[in-house]
Amino acid sequence: MMQARSYIVRSMLGKTYDSQVCSIARALELVGERWSLLIVRDALFAGTTRYVEFQRRLRIATNILQSRLDGFVAAGIMERRTRSSAAGPEYLLTDKGRDLAPVLVALTQWGDRWAAPDGPPICYTHETCGSTAGVEITCAKCGALPDADEVIIRPGPGMPAEYLQRMAAARAAY
Amino acid sequence: MMQARSYIVRSMLGKTYDSQVCSIARALELVGERWSLLIVRDALFAGTTRYVEFQRRLRIATNILQSRLDGFVAAGIMERRTRSSAAGPEYLLTDKGRDLAPVLVALTQWGDRWAAPDGPPICYTHETCGSTAGVEITCAKCGALPDADEVIIRPGPGMPAEYLQRMAAARAAY
Repeated sequence: MMQARSYIVRSMLGKTYDSQVCSIARALELVGERWSLLIVRDALFAGTTRYVEFQRRLRIATNILQSRLDGFVAAGIMERRTRSSAAGPEYLLTDKGRDLAPVLVALTQWGDRWAAPDGPPICYTHETCGSTAGVEITCAKCGALPDADEVIIRPGPGMPAEYLQRMAAARAAY
Repeated sequence: MMQARSYIVRSMLGKTYDSQVCSIARALELVGERWSLLIVRDALFAGTTRYVEFQRRLRIATNILQSRLDGFVAAGIMERRTRSSAAGPEYLLTDKGRDLAPVLVALTQWGDRWAAPDGPPICYTHETCGSTAGVEITCAKCGALPDADEVIIRPGPGMPAEYLQRMAAARAAY
Protein backbone atom coordinates (compact mmCIF):
# COMPACT_ATOMS: atom_id res chain seq x y z
CA MET A 1 0.00 0.00 0.00
CA MET A 2 2.76 2.46 0.93
CA GLN A 3 4.65 1.22 -2.10
CA ALA A 4 1.68 1.97 -4.32
CA ARG A 5 1.24 5.45 -2.90
CA SER A 6 4.92 6.18 -3.21
CA TYR A 7 4.71 5.23 -6.87
CA ILE A 8 1.76 7.57 -7.41
CA VAL A 9 3.61 10.41 -5.75
CA ARG A 10 6.67 9.86 -7.88
CA SER A 11 4.78 9.66 -11.11
CA MET A 12 2.58 12.58 -10.11
CA LEU A 13 5.34 15.05 -9.43
CA GLY A 14 8.53 13.53 -10.72
CA LYS A 15 10.55 15.23 -8.01
CA THR A 16 13.94 14.17 -6.84
CA TYR A 17 13.64 15.40 -3.31
CA ASP A 18 11.20 12.68 -2.32
CA SER A 19 14.20 10.60 -1.37
CA GLN A 20 15.01 12.93 1.49
CA VAL A 21 14.07 11.56 4.86
CA CYS A 22 12.12 14.63 5.99
CA SER A 23 8.46 15.30 6.63
CA ILE A 24 8.74 18.75 5.05
CA ALA A 25 10.11 17.26 1.83
CA ARG A 26 7.42 14.60 1.86
CA ALA A 27 4.68 17.16 2.51
CA LEU A 28 5.96 19.30 -0.36
CA GLU A 29 5.89 16.23 -2.61
CA LEU A 30 2.15 16.11 -2.08
CA VAL A 31 1.17 19.77 -1.79
CA GLY A 32 4.23 21.77 -2.87
CA GLU A 33 3.49 21.86 -6.57
CA ARG A 34 2.37 25.17 -8.00
CA TRP A 35 -1.35 25.84 -7.34
CA SER A 36 -1.74 22.88 -4.98
CA LEU A 37 -2.09 24.86 -1.76
CA LEU A 38 -4.30 27.46 -3.43
CA ILE A 39 -6.69 24.70 -4.46
CA VAL A 40 -6.72 23.39 -0.89
CA ARG A 41 -7.25 26.97 0.36
CA ASP A 42 -10.37 27.40 -1.79
CA ALA A 43 -11.69 23.98 -0.79
CA LEU A 44 -11.09 24.65 2.90
CA PHE A 45 -12.03 28.28 3.38
CA ALA A 46 -14.35 29.02 0.42
CA GLY A 47 -16.07 25.63 0.34
CA THR A 48 -15.24 25.13 -3.34
CA THR A 49 -15.95 21.59 -4.52
CA ARG A 50 -16.44 21.57 -8.29
CA TYR A 51 -13.95 21.75 -11.11
CA VAL A 52 -15.73 24.73 -12.74
CA GLU A 53 -15.70 26.68 -9.46
CA PHE A 54 -11.99 26.06 -8.92
CA GLN A 55 -11.41 27.05 -12.52
CA ARG A 56 -13.39 30.27 -12.17
CA ARG A 57 -11.74 31.25 -8.90
CA LEU A 58 -8.17 30.37 -9.78
CA ARG A 59 -8.09 30.94 -13.56
CA ILE A 60 -5.71 28.03 -13.79
CA ALA A 61 -4.98 26.07 -16.96
CA THR A 62 -7.56 23.30 -17.22
CA ASN A 63 -5.06 20.47 -17.66
CA ILE A 64 -3.12 21.60 -14.58
CA LEU A 65 -6.27 21.90 -12.47
CA GLN A 66 -7.46 18.41 -13.44
CA SER A 67 -4.00 16.99 -12.81
CA ARG A 68 -3.90 18.54 -9.32
CA LEU A 69 -7.40 17.31 -8.42
CA ASP A 70 -6.59 13.81 -9.70
CA GLY A 71 -3.33 13.89 -7.75
CA PHE A 72 -5.15 14.92 -4.57
CA VAL A 73 -7.59 12.05 -5.00
CA ALA A 74 -4.71 9.60 -5.61
CA ALA A 75 -2.89 10.91 -2.52
CA GLY A 76 -5.99 10.70 -0.31
CA ILE A 77 -6.19 14.47 0.19
CA MET A 78 -9.54 14.72 -1.62
CA GLU A 79 -12.40 12.38 -2.42
CA ARG A 80 -14.23 12.46 -5.72
CA ARG A 81 -18.00 12.15 -5.36
CA THR A 82 -20.55 12.09 -8.17
CA ARG A 83 -24.14 12.70 -7.18
CA SER A 84 -25.44 14.03 -10.48
CA SER A 85 -23.67 13.36 -13.73
CA ALA A 86 -24.93 16.65 -15.16
CA ALA A 87 -23.17 18.77 -12.55
CA GLY A 88 -19.95 16.75 -12.69
CA PRO A 89 -18.07 15.30 -9.73
CA GLU A 90 -17.41 17.10 -6.46
CA TYR A 91 -13.97 17.15 -4.89
CA LEU A 92 -14.16 17.04 -1.11
CA LEU A 93 -11.25 17.36 1.29
CA THR A 94 -10.59 14.31 3.44
CA ASP A 95 -9.28 14.54 7.01
CA LYS A 96 -5.80 14.42 5.50
CA GLY A 97 -6.68 17.42 3.34
CA ARG A 98 -8.39 19.41 6.10
CA ASP A 99 -5.35 18.80 8.29
CA LEU A 100 -3.46 21.22 6.03
CA ALA A 101 -5.26 24.13 7.72
CA PRO A 102 -2.32 25.02 10.01
CA VAL A 103 0.00 25.16 6.97
CA LEU A 104 -2.36 27.56 5.20
CA VAL A 105 -2.87 29.72 8.27
CA ALA A 106 0.91 29.85 8.83
CA LEU A 107 1.46 30.91 5.21
CA THR A 108 -1.25 33.55 5.59
CA GLN A 109 0.36 34.98 8.71
CA TRP A 110 3.72 35.22 7.02
CA GLY A 111 2.19 36.84 3.92
CA ASP A 112 0.15 39.24 6.08
CA ARG A 113 3.31 40.30 7.86
CA TRP A 114 5.76 40.47 4.98
CA ALA A 115 3.79 40.76 1.72
CA ALA A 116 0.62 42.70 2.46
CA PRO A 117 1.37 46.44 1.97
CA ASP A 118 -2.31 47.36 2.46
CA GLY A 119 -2.86 45.09 5.46
CA PRO A 120 -4.27 41.57 5.57
CA PRO A 121 -6.80 40.94 2.78
CA ILE A 122 -8.60 38.43 4.96
CA CYS A 123 -8.67 37.74 8.68
CA TYR A 124 -9.11 34.39 10.39
CA THR A 125 -11.71 34.60 13.11
CA HIS A 126 -12.79 32.16 15.81
CA GLU A 127 -16.45 31.79 14.89
CA THR A 128 -17.84 31.27 18.37
CA CYS A 129 -16.14 34.23 20.08
CA GLY A 130 -15.19 36.52 17.16
CA SER A 131 -11.55 36.90 18.20
CA THR A 132 -8.60 36.63 15.86
CA ALA A 133 -7.29 33.14 15.09
CA GLY A 134 -3.76 32.26 13.97
CA VAL A 135 -0.98 29.73 14.46
CA GLU A 136 1.68 29.71 17.11
CA ILE A 137 4.71 27.59 17.78
CA THR A 138 3.98 25.97 21.10
CA CYS A 139 5.76 23.73 23.59
CA ALA A 140 3.70 20.85 24.99
CA LYS A 141 4.77 21.93 28.49
CA CYS A 142 5.45 25.69 28.33
CA GLY A 143 2.79 26.89 25.86
CA ALA A 144 3.46 29.53 23.21
CA LEU A 145 7.09 30.00 22.10
CA PRO A 146 7.35 33.43 20.47
CA ASP A 147 11.03 32.86 19.74
CA ALA A 148 11.59 30.03 17.24
CA ASP A 149 15.27 30.01 18.25
CA GLU A 150 14.20 28.10 21.36
CA VAL A 151 13.24 25.17 19.14
CA ILE A 152 15.89 22.59 18.23
CA ILE A 153 15.58 19.45 16.14
CA ARG A 154 16.50 15.91 17.18
CA PRO A 155 16.34 12.62 15.29
CA GLY A 156 12.98 10.89 15.70
CA PRO A 157 11.86 7.25 15.41
CA GLY A 158 11.59 7.53 11.62
CA MET A 159 15.25 8.43 11.12
CA PRO A 160 16.98 5.46 9.45
CA ALA A 161 19.85 3.86 11.40
CA GLU A 162 22.39 4.51 8.65
CA TYR A 163 21.64 8.26 8.82
CA LEU A 164 22.13 8.23 12.58
CA GLN A 165 25.49 6.48 12.17
CA ARG A 166 26.58 9.01 9.56
CA MET A 167 25.56 11.89 11.87
CA ALA A 168 27.47 10.34 14.79
CA ALA A 169 30.55 9.87 12.60
CA ALA A 170 30.34 13.51 11.47
CA ARG A 171 30.15 14.69 15.10
CA ALA A 172 33.07 12.47 16.12
CA ALA A 173 35.21 13.95 13.34
CA TYR A 174 35.10 17.41 14.96
CA MET B 1 9.78 50.50 -2.98
CA MET B 2 6.82 48.12 -2.97
CA GLN B 3 6.66 48.61 -6.71
CA ALA B 4 10.28 47.58 -7.04
CA ARG B 5 9.82 44.48 -4.92
CA SER B 6 6.69 43.52 -6.77
CA TYR B 7 8.66 43.74 -10.00
CA ILE B 8 11.39 41.51 -8.61
CA VAL B 9 8.83 38.94 -7.51
CA ARG B 10 7.18 38.89 -10.90
CA SER B 11 10.41 38.57 -12.80
CA MET B 12 11.73 35.99 -10.35
CA LEU B 13 8.86 33.56 -10.59
CA GLY B 14 6.74 34.62 -13.53
CA LYS B 15 3.61 33.34 -11.84
CA THR B 16 0.13 34.40 -12.68
CA TYR B 17 -1.35 33.95 -9.26
CA ASP B 18 0.50 36.95 -7.83
CA SER B 19 -2.48 39.03 -8.87
CA GLN B 20 -4.68 37.31 -6.34
CA VAL B 21 -5.37 39.39 -3.29
CA CYS B 22 -4.36 36.73 -0.77
CA SER B 23 -1.49 36.42 1.65
CA ILE B 24 -1.18 32.70 0.91
CA ALA B 25 -0.75 33.39 -2.82
CA ARG B 26 1.73 36.16 -2.07
CA ALA B 27 3.68 33.95 0.32
CA LEU B 28 3.82 31.17 -2.28
CA GLU B 29 5.10 33.69 -4.82
CA LEU B 30 8.14 34.14 -2.60
CA VAL B 31 8.67 30.69 -1.11
CA GLY B 32 6.40 28.33 -3.06
CA GLU B 33 8.79 27.53 -5.86
CA ARG B 34 10.28 24.04 -5.86
CA TRP B 35 13.17 23.73 -3.38
CA SER B 36 12.57 27.13 -1.78
CA LEU B 37 11.24 25.89 1.55
CA LEU B 38 13.84 23.12 1.72
CA ILE B 39 16.58 25.73 1.38
CA VAL B 40 14.97 27.78 4.18
CA ARG B 41 14.65 24.58 6.24
CA ASP B 42 18.37 23.86 5.99
CA ALA B 43 19.26 27.49 6.75
CA LEU B 44 16.94 27.61 9.76
CA PHE B 45 17.34 24.21 11.39
CA ALA B 46 20.73 22.98 10.11
CA GLY B 47 22.47 26.37 10.13
CA THR B 48 23.52 26.01 6.50
CA THR B 49 24.90 29.27 5.09
CA ARG B 50 27.11 28.49 2.09
CA TYR B 51 26.27 27.59 -1.48
CA VAL B 52 28.43 24.44 -1.38
CA GLU B 53 26.76 23.23 1.82
CA PHE B 54 23.26 23.74 0.39
CA GLN B 55 24.40 21.96 -2.76
CA ARG B 56 25.82 19.02 -0.85
CA ARG B 57 22.75 18.66 1.40
CA LEU B 58 20.06 19.13 -1.24
CA ARG B 59 21.76 17.77 -4.38
CA ILE B 60 19.96 20.43 -6.32
CA ALA B 61 20.92 21.62 -9.81
CA THR B 62 23.47 24.41 -9.38
CA ASN B 63 21.64 26.96 -11.55
CA ILE B 64 18.40 26.41 -9.61
CA LEU B 65 20.15 26.74 -6.25
CA GLN B 66 21.85 29.99 -7.25
CA SER B 67 18.60 31.33 -8.65
CA ARG B 68 16.77 30.55 -5.38
CA LEU B 69 19.49 32.12 -3.23
CA ASP B 70 19.57 35.22 -5.45
CA GLY B 71 15.78 35.39 -5.31
CA PHE B 72 15.80 35.16 -1.50
CA VAL B 73 18.31 38.01 -1.33
CA ALA B 74 16.19 40.11 -3.74
CA ALA B 75 13.07 39.40 -1.68
CA GLY B 76 14.74 40.24 1.63
CA ILE B 77 14.47 36.68 2.95
CA MET B 78 18.26 36.23 3.06
CA GLU B 79 21.28 38.51 3.23
CA ARG B 80 24.45 37.82 1.29
CA ARG B 81 27.59 38.40 3.33
CA THR B 82 31.17 38.00 2.12
CA ARG B 83 33.83 37.81 4.80
CA SER B 84 36.46 35.90 2.88
CA SER B 85 36.50 35.76 -0.88
CA ALA B 86 38.11 32.30 -0.78
CA ALA B 87 35.19 30.69 1.06
CA GLY B 88 32.54 32.47 -1.02
CA PRO B 89 29.56 34.41 0.30
CA GLU B 90 27.35 33.32 3.16
CA TYR B 91 23.57 33.41 2.88
CA LEU B 92 21.94 34.33 6.17
CA LEU B 93 18.24 34.38 6.91
CA THR B 94 16.81 37.77 7.79
CA ASP B 95 13.94 38.23 10.27
CA LYS B 96 11.61 37.83 7.29
CA GLY B 97 13.25 34.49 6.49
CA ARG B 98 13.34 33.24 10.08
CA ASP B 99 9.66 34.13 10.39
CA LEU B 100 8.94 31.17 8.07
CA ALA B 101 9.57 28.80 10.99
CA PRO B 102 5.84 28.25 11.74
CA VAL B 103 5.23 27.35 8.07
CA LEU B 104 8.02 24.76 8.19
CA VAL B 105 6.89 23.32 11.51
CA ALA B 106 3.29 23.11 10.23
CA LEU B 107 4.47 21.27 7.09
CA THR B 108 6.53 18.93 9.27
CA GLN B 109 3.55 18.10 11.47
CA TRP B 110 1.40 17.33 8.47
CA GLY B 111 4.12 15.17 6.91
CA ASP B 112 4.74 13.40 10.23
CA ARG B 113 1.08 12.58 10.47
CA TRP B 114 0.30 11.67 6.87
CA ALA B 115 3.55 10.81 5.10
CA ALA B 116 5.89 9.24 7.66
CA PRO B 117 5.26 5.47 7.66
CA ASP B 118 8.20 4.86 10.02
CA GLY B 119 7.37 7.72 12.37
CA PRO B 120 8.74 11.27 12.40
CA PRO B 121 12.33 11.42 11.08
CA ILE B 122 13.02 14.45 13.27
CA CYS B 123 11.34 15.91 16.33
CA TYR B 124 11.10 19.56 17.28
CA THR B 125 12.06 20.08 20.88
CA HIS B 126 11.86 23.10 23.19
CA GLU B 127 15.52 23.47 24.07
CA THR B 128 15.11 24.80 27.59
CA CYS B 129 12.64 22.18 28.87
CA GLY B 130 13.09 19.26 26.46
CA SER B 131 9.37 18.91 25.65
CA THR B 132 7.90 18.51 22.19
CA ALA B 133 7.33 21.68 20.17
CA GLY B 134 4.81 22.11 17.34
CA VAL B 135 2.29 24.54 15.90
CA GLU B 136 -1.31 24.97 16.90
CA ILE B 137 -4.18 27.02 15.56
CA THR B 138 -5.04 29.34 18.41
CA CYS B 139 -7.66 31.96 19.19
CA ALA B 140 -6.37 35.18 20.77
CA LYS B 141 -9.03 34.82 23.47
CA CYS B 142 -9.76 31.08 23.82
CA GLY B 143 -6.33 29.53 23.23
CA ALA B 144 -5.78 26.34 21.20
CA LEU B 145 -8.46 25.45 18.63
CA PRO B 146 -8.09 21.75 17.85
CA ASP B 147 -10.94 21.94 15.33
CA ALA B 148 -10.10 24.15 12.34
CA ASP B 149 -13.79 24.18 11.43
CA GLU B 150 -14.24 26.75 14.19
CA VAL B 151 -12.19 29.19 12.14
CA ILE B 152 -13.93 31.36 9.54
CA ILE B 153 -12.50 34.01 7.25
CA ARG B 154 -13.61 37.61 6.95
CA PRO B 155 -12.38 40.43 4.72
CA GLY B 156 -9.52 42.38 6.30
CA PRO B 157 -8.22 45.94 5.81
CA GLY B 158 -6.18 44.88 2.77
CA MET B 159 -9.21 43.68 0.78
CA PRO B 160 -9.77 46.14 -2.10
CA ALA B 161 -13.14 47.94 -2.14
CA GLU B 162 -14.10 46.57 -5.56
CA TYR B 163 -13.71 43.02 -4.26
CA LEU B 164 -15.93 43.79 -1.29
CA GLN B 165 -18.58 45.23 -3.61
CA ARG B 166 -18.42 42.13 -5.81
CA MET B 167 -18.79 39.87 -2.75
CA ALA B 168 -21.80 41.88 -1.51
CA ALA B 169 -23.40 41.68 -4.96
CA ALA B 170 -22.86 37.91 -5.03
CA ARG B 171 -24.49 37.57 -1.60
CA ALA B 172 -27.44 39.80 -2.62
CA ALA B 173 -28.01 37.63 -5.72
CA TYR B 174 -28.90 34.63 -3.53
